[in-house]
Amino acid sequence: MQWADKLSMIQPFYVMEVLAQVKALEGQGRDIVRFMVGEPEFATPQPVLNAGIQALEQDQTRYTDARGLASLRKQIAQWYDRQYGVSVPIHRIIVTPGTSGAFILAFGILLNPGDSVAITDPGYPCYPNIIRMLGGEPYLIPVGPESEYQLDAQLLKPAIEKGIRGVLITSPSNPTGTLIAPKVLKEVIELVGHSKGMVISDEIYHGITYGEQAQTALSFSDNVIVINGFSKFFAMTGWRLGWMIVPDEAVKAVEALAQNLFISAPTISQHAAQSVFGCQDQLLDQVAAYDRNRQVMIARLRNMGFIIAVEPRGAFYIYADATHVLKKTGLDDAQQLCTVILNDVGVAITPGLDFGQYRSNVHVRFSYAVGPERVEEGLMRLERFIQK
Amino acid sequence: MQWADKLSMIQPFYVMEVLAQVKALEGQGRDIVRFMVGEPEFATPQPVLNAGIQALEQDQTRYTDARGLASLRKQIAQWYDRQYGVSVPIHRIIVTPGTSGAFILAFGILLNPGDSVAITDPGYPCYPNIIRMLGGEPYLIPVGPESEYQLDAQLLKPAIEKGIRGVLITSPSNPTGTLIAPKVLKEVIELVGHSKGMVISDEIYHGITYGEQAQTALSFSDNVIVINGFSKFFAMTGWRLGWMIVPDEAVKAVEALAQNLFISAPTISQHAAQSVFGCQDQLLDQVAAYDRNRQVMIARLRNMGFIIAVEPRGAFYIYADATHVLKKTGLDDAQQLCTVILNDVGVAITPGLDFGQYRSNVHVRFSYAVGPERVEEGLMRLERFIQK
Repeated sequence: MQWADKLSMIQPFYVMEVLAQVKALEGQGRDIVRFMVGEPEFATPQPVLNAGIQALEQDQTRYTDARGLASLRKQIAQWYDRQYGVSVPIHRIIVTPGTSGAFILAFGILLNPGDSVAITDPGYPCYPNIIRMLGGEPYLIPVGPESEYQLDAQLLKPAIEKGIRGVLITSPSNPTGTLIAPKVLKEVIELVGHSKGMVISDEIYHGITYGEQAQTALSFSDNVIVINGFSKFFAMTGWRLGWMIVPDEAVKAVEALAQNLFISAPTISQHAAQSVFGCQDQLLDQVAAYDRNRQVMIARLRNMGFIIAVEPRGAFYIYADATHVLKKTGLDDAQQLCTVILNDVGVAITPGLDFGQYRSNVHVRFSYAVGPERVEEGLMRLERFIQK
Repeated sequence: MQWADKLSMIQPFYVMEVLAQVKALEGQGRDIVRFMVGEPEFATPQPVLNAGIQALEQDQTRYTDARGLASLRKQIAQWYDRQYGVSVPIHRIIVTPGTSGAFILAFGILLNPGDSVAITDPGYPCYPNIIRMLGGEPYLIPVGPESEYQLDAQLLKPAIEKGIRGVLITSPSNPTGTLIAPKVLKEVIELVGHSKGMVISDEIYHGITYGEQAQTALSFSDNVIVINGFSKFFAMTGWRLGWMIVPDEAVKAVEALAQNLFISAPTISQHAAQSVFGCQDQLLDQVAAYDRNRQVMIARLRNMGFIIAVEPRGAFYIYADATHVLKKTGLDDAQQLCTVILNDVGVAITPGLDFGQYRSNVHVRFSYAVGPERVEEGLMRLERFIQK
């Protein structure tokens, strides 16, 4: 049986293979420091769990409106007001099954066969695959420290001249943790606004920033698609709940598509998520803990020889150039480095290959969404390995 | 802003507009009998709610494996054994966010741009839209009472000669409630097996059958894609949980695609669903209640002049030819009939237009997934309306 051609382009994430190896090693009794997962390790705030329990006790488990519960969408609107001073009318907010669902809807309403979407290389590995599944083509733009691993108007010009349909901005970025400067974001939105394209702003790591607040694309224009969700700052991963904010004129199309593709987002999650907005203090404590991890890791990784050209100021990732470390250890490339580190000292990190082609064979991603004692343990093991 | 061309083909379900009208009327204090929804009205079995509460109390809310929890997949395998006497290896079972997610994965792995999938007209309105979103084309085959509204080898031959990629079987069918005969299903699977196509068997209404058991496509071949879920027989709608069983050689592709498109199905739902298999008695009581509704409705609708050419033996729908009723009432078509019935006597039903083109303007769908007193009330109102 032949499967769809586009499937041959879809690799399982390398990080999933790492995860399988980690589980195998752990099954043998090995202790592995998990610097590879993008999943917050903190407990869910108790009010969220309580709200979920209450929904179950009242059997509030039926389908909701395809756009999500009105009460939840109202809370999301209020969050934009409090967080950014931006007023978002509720009818432009659509609750989705995770941000994954929001991306499927966004590319679904935008893409005709062969249409392309500009994304960064390195970038989140699901983007190109979702784009291809919906008939489009990823238009990869290599980015490096010069632009802080973000797109800017200059990098985008050739793509826009070619008539790309979408421009995806991820700030803070996975895997680099860098933010787009507000001025650059504004320029990009203006540039794309003059074309037939649409900016899609992935803001899933908003809230997890250090020393500054990320700015929503909605501050600059209503004619953008903003995607966010409950899995990162709000730390509600397996609840599978996200949202998108779309231009007025896209609301009907998104709603019809959501009815067809998803029916509605998980109901219990929609009830529970309404309590998470009141847990700001606990969530900010988590961000403070991430920040401590970040500072420790940056300093000690640099000390080991990893090049961190742009200091990450958001998310919980460090994207490091391992050129010197490869030289020191006599290893061929980042993939080999990851394998050897996992097997020799039990630290799991993700090779750059998961995030693109551009210099990815000398890069690795560290995730520090773990407790401080695990950060310490992992760093000690890495130091031992590299200095031996 | 121009949206994707394929969007112009996607109509919001007419039933959603009916639902909006129903809510508006109810908002004015009107009592509306809801014969339009495809959602079971029964309470969720207590053990399921308890298992969900326990998952929350233990904060078991993180991402699962993209294929779903091993313990849930094992229970699904056991269910195939008990229910059908079919042995399904666990690695071929993938838990999905609703059957919606399973369809996206199935068409995602199958379809190259322009590939077509044979479906019945009338049929479930999401099918053509999901197929188009993934770059394919629905190949609509008009079906009527002659084939019990199901596909058969003879109806499929021209499509197969044209090289269609998929054949979708829905038994019991939405909107007609008819089952495919095991012999016909076997013939279809054999016919398609000799082509480059794949049978996709939507078995979401299995379990809700009257006087006979629906047969899974897996009884006849391992080289089919079977889709099922927890929203109909198991009555867990807003939990958004389904599953698919795929051929050995498709497992890797489906898993990679699921990672990219969904990450994983809702975790709390995965924990809770494991308790639903133990609630067979309560679930069968619900089916018995549906059956009583069905018998009452068929008799009295026929008495009013609705033609029910094939007695529905599954799901909770009756697809009725309203030709005589239109004549009696002097109305133009089924859409007008639905509007007038809703406004005049407060009974909401779905016009055939939602399910296709073939004679749809004289057909309506009744759903009887409601309590017996609502069936009685709705039928009384209809009788009053038609006999006046």
